[in-house]
Amino acid sequence: MNDTMTTATIEADPKVPIIRVTRDFAATPAQLFRAHTDPELFVRWVGPDGMTTTLDRWDASTGGSWRYLAARNGMEFGFHGCFHEVRPDRIVQTFTWEGDPDGVALETLLFEDLGDGRTRLRAQSLCDSFEGRDAWLRSGMEVGVDQGYAKLDALLAAGRIAGTVEGAEA
Amino acid sequence: MNDTMTTATIEADPKVPIIRVTRDFAATPAQLFRAHTDPELFVRWVGPDGMTTTLDRWDASTGGSWRYLAARNGMEFGFHGCFHEVRPDRIVQTFTWEGDPDGVALETLLFEDLGDGRTRLRAQSLCDSFEGRDAWLRSGMEVGVDQGYAKLDALLAAGRIAGTVEGAEA
Repeated sequence: MNDTMTTATIEADPKVPIIRVTRDFAATPAQLFRAHTDPELFVRWVGPDGMTTTLDRWDASTGGSWRYLAARNGMEFGFHGCFHEVRPDRIVQTFTWEGDPDGVALETLLFEDLGDGRTRLRAQSLCDSFEGRDAWLRSGMEVGVDQGYAKLDALLAAGRIAGTVEGAEA
Repeated sequence: MNDTMTTATIEADPKVPIIRVTRDFAATPAQLFRAHTDPELFVRWVGPDGMTTTLDRWDASTGGSWRYLAARNGMEFGFHGCFHEVRPDRIVQTFTWEGDPDGVALETLLFEDLGDGRTRLRAQSLCDSFEGRDAWLRSGMEVGVDQGYAKLDALLAAGRIAGTVEGAEA
């Protein structure tokens, strides 16, 4: 644990309407997979500080779907999507913020083993226009990303995320 | 019925890796919605002539998923995805051809009422690279699109697709 918060690298692709987020964790791929699929763990780290996340629907498996509500200061935000593919090294899902109900992004998360108990998360969000993509970048999303991942770092440091996935090797 | 087959307009967006298909039908939006969601109807028109489609999984509702196998001349092709949103005027789903298992497109279908029993189908396929998008365009996809929609025209002309949707107004 140190005083400086690790920040994610957030990049706007120049050629296609994609946001790419890269972040290293002191975790195995199996731990990052659990953090993104176990409903009790997921709600404990996703989103910015002070936001309370409640799952309305959660089936983190290939062909499943999800919906959660994020609340802070009396405001509530809904998000939903479906899981195209869920496997130990890769999650592909759709993502809609219900404040823009017809907007849909296609998200791909990759868990890349760096060895020595470290894993690089590569997240890609594909939008259908540069305008939509750039609106996300201007929304202050980096605060939620960095504060969320800092909570995930803390869960990992506290030993709250087991290193094995049911049905998969650690 | 006439001798000249109606062809779809297939366009490659110059700015984003999207294929746009536009096709008018002698159908109501409710009929086109049924043709895309009713499993028994869907398999009767999707894909090129001579291809036999068998559903492996089919839940055409928001948060549902699908998988089908298309067979011709002893070859079999698998396709699967999840339904992000299914509503009378719009279907958003993911799409993977299992010959390229990590490739995923995000598809949006819109049913635009033209009046007088005609509806314009606008389909958008969003890929995560221009290379992937252009490979689809070079694959001969227009044959499957045009032959499939010709089969759908024939089902409509034969009165095989009811004009109302369960739970929705015609």
